[in-house]
Parts: sequence; C-alpha cells; structure tokens
Amino acid sequence: MEPSINFKPAVSLTEQIANHLSDEIITGKLAPAQRIQELKVAKSLGVSRGSVREALLILEGRHLIEIIPRRGAVVSGLHREQVESLFEITSTLLTMLMTKATRVWKDASELAGFDDALKDMEQALDEGNIGAFTDATGAYFRAAFPLCGNCYLQSIVEDLLPAHQRLMYQVLARGSERMEQDLAELRAVLVAIRSRTVQAVEHTMSNFSRRQRERALELS
Amino acid sequence: MEPSINFKPAVSLTEQIANHLSDEIITGKLAPAQRIQELKVAKSLGVSRGSVREALLILEGRHLIEIIPRRGAVVSGLHREQVESLFEITSTLLTMLMTKATRVWKDASELAGFDDALKDMEQALDEGNIGAFTDATGAYFRAAFPLCGNCYLQSIVEDLLPAHQRLMYQVLARGSERMEQDLAELRAVLVAIRSRTVQAVEHTMSNFSRRQRERALELS
Repeated sequence: MEPSINFKPAVSLTEQIANHLSDEIITGKLAPAQRIQELKVAKSLGVSRGSVREALLILEGRHLIEIIPRRGAVVSGLHREQVESLFEITSTLLTMLMTKATRVWKDASELAGFDDALKDMEQALDEGNIGAFTDATGAYFRAAFPLCGNCYLQSIVEDLLPAHQRLMYQVLARGSERMEQDLAELRAVLVAIRSRTVQAVEHTMSNFSRRQRERALELS
Repeated sequence: MEPSINFKPAVSLTEQIANHLSDEIITGKLAPAQRIQELKVAKSLGVSRGSVREALLILEGRHLIEIIPRRGAVVSGLHREQVESLFEITSTLLTMLMTKATRVWKDASELAGFDDALKDMEQALDEGNIGAFTDATGAYFRAAFPLCGNCYLQSIVEDLLPAHQRLMYQVLARGSERMEQDLAELRAVLVAIRSRTVQAVEHTMSNFSRRQRERALELS
C-alpha cells in the first residue's frame, strides 16, 4: 500500500480513501480474500480510523469488499459463481442503461461523452495503459447517465462499475491485446445507439457482455 | 425521534442506528427533503457522531437519503420522477429474483419462507398493522434470496427494499383496505412459482408492480 495519497480538495476524505483502496483492489494489489485492517490503513495513510471505517462502508457498497461481523473487511472473491453473478446483473443493468439512452437522445451533441471515452480508450490502447483503458470504459458507460433519467439505475450501475472494472483489469493484465476487441465492441454499441435501434443496442451489448464474461471466467 | 433504541447485541451499533432511521423514513416520521443532522441524532440516541456518520452512509446505500457535500444528509424525495424510476428498477430486479427462484427450487420445503411471509401478511391485515404488513412483504421477497444464487442481485435488492417499503407504507397509510389486494397478488406470484412457469411469474409480478406503481404515483 502506498504511504500517501494526493488528496484533492473537492472530494471528501472518506471518498478519497475509498477511491485509493478501490484502485488497489481493481489492480490486484489487494488480492481476493485478503483482509483489510482498519488500523493499518489508518496509520499508513495518516487518517483517522473513523474515516477508514466510513471508506470501508463505501467499498462494501461497491461490492469490492465484504464486512464480516467481528472479523472485519475482506476483499471480495473472484470465484466462478461470483464472476457469473456479477456479469448476470451488470449485463442486465448496463443494457437497460444503454437502451434507455438510445430511446431518449435527441441531439448528436448528447452523445459526445461516448466519443470522448472511445478516444481515451484508443489512446490507452496505443500506450498499452490498462488502468487508463478500464477507466475510460467506465467513463463510456457513465456517458449514458445524463440520458437515462433514472437516479436509482444510475447509482446502482455506479456501484457495480468498479467490480466490473476489476474483472476487466485482471483479464487485460493477462493479455493487453484484448483491448482492441473491447474497443471494437463498444464502438459497435455506439453505432447502434446512433441508429436509435434498441434491438441493435441489445445485440451489441450482449456480444460485449458475453465475451467479457467468458474471458473473466478463464481467470477463475 | 424517539430518545432511545433497544439495542440488540447481534447487530452492530451502526446497523441499529441505520435501521432506526430507516423506520423513521419508511413511516414518514422523517419527511421527504427533511435534513438529518448528525449531531442532533447522535445526542438524541446517545451515540457517537462517527457511528451516526456510518449509519448515514448505509442509509444512502438504501436510497433513503442523499448526502450532499457541505450540506449533509437529506431524506430522499418522492417526486413523480423518483417514484417512476424506483418502480422501473425494482420491478426489473424483483422479477429477475423471482424467476431465478422459480427455475431453481427443487423441494417444496424451499418455498416455506414465502408461505410464512404470506401468513404474517394475513395476520397484519387482520390487525390493520401497516408496518407489520410492509415488513412481511419485505420478508416475502427475501425468501427468494437462498434460491437466487446471485449475491450481487441479493445485495442490490436488499438495498432497494426499504425504499419500496416506504412507498408501500405511504400508500397503505392512505387506505389500509388495499392490503387485501397486495396479499392476493403475492399469493398469485407464489402459485406461479409453485407451477414452475416462468412466464406466469413474470405476469403476476408485472401485475403487482404495475398496480404498486399506479398507487404510489397518486401520492406525488
């Protein structure tokens, strides 16, 4: 664990600790089933134990850890059943998100967020930067938030994205050439959104989800 | 707000504070858009401010409050758009939960939790006890958890149930005679689960969700 974080003033301390620990879990520095000790984290980051406890509640909400009574926080596992379950729910909700965006957008400018994210994915692909690539994938799906008009769906997907990103990261760490296929599939989803064809969005999203799932299952 | 809670030893203090505040929001003692002040809650319950902060993070995860930077916690609104959004997502996920249970159950004993919950609903109906009735409705859906085999779906539904229960409570507070129809509809869902007919489960769940939604929209 890094001994210090660059704290940004706009984000609360709790949120910053949560984001720091999220990164460690996504990139595998904190491994499945590893214990996270409040006191140790508090000391190493120079923050209060209370702030760490709050950050752990946020991480639990993001499905990255489990808090077990009288045992504390443990990094979520990546067993076959957990990977299957995660993809079942994320593919349902991401498809719901993208089809809602498809039905709602009016002006092409509303789709700029998707284009920006695809550009960031391209750049990360050129640089072979897995972290930046998975971040940009998150940004791609978040580009649908202003269009989806459902604050509940938005917050549930927001909480699922880090766990999804974790699986993507672990897959790409084994073979970063796979980024190209991810990029091609998410480009196809945007073409479908532009064509306003809900069925095409469902089809391209299903391709993306199915292949993500297959690859992630090879990890377990 | 009640000045004291009966703390149960098995549940963490944070969880108990969260459950206490959840009840106040569900039953409308804490109204939409009302501010929840950490310090005031801490004093009135005789707990630390840190514990209240943690409880508020749990309530945010349950979609019952929003935590606004530099403003603090505010009870979630019940505007038309929010009610529509909540039903869109809960109906999708509760139907997913129930159809998964339908596909998986083998022995009739695995459905006992549904029967128990329906019995509790009947008793609450006889007593005209709205709180007990909505609690039993929550227990009815939770009876599918051991059968659904998806820990992510389970935790997301668990977090949505209090907001759903809040709407049910507010609707029934305006006319408790409506409990009878809820009970009839959830009985029909169980008949469909017993018949192992996924389509019938989807149909009966869609009836239940649609009518819940219509009634809740009358509130806004």
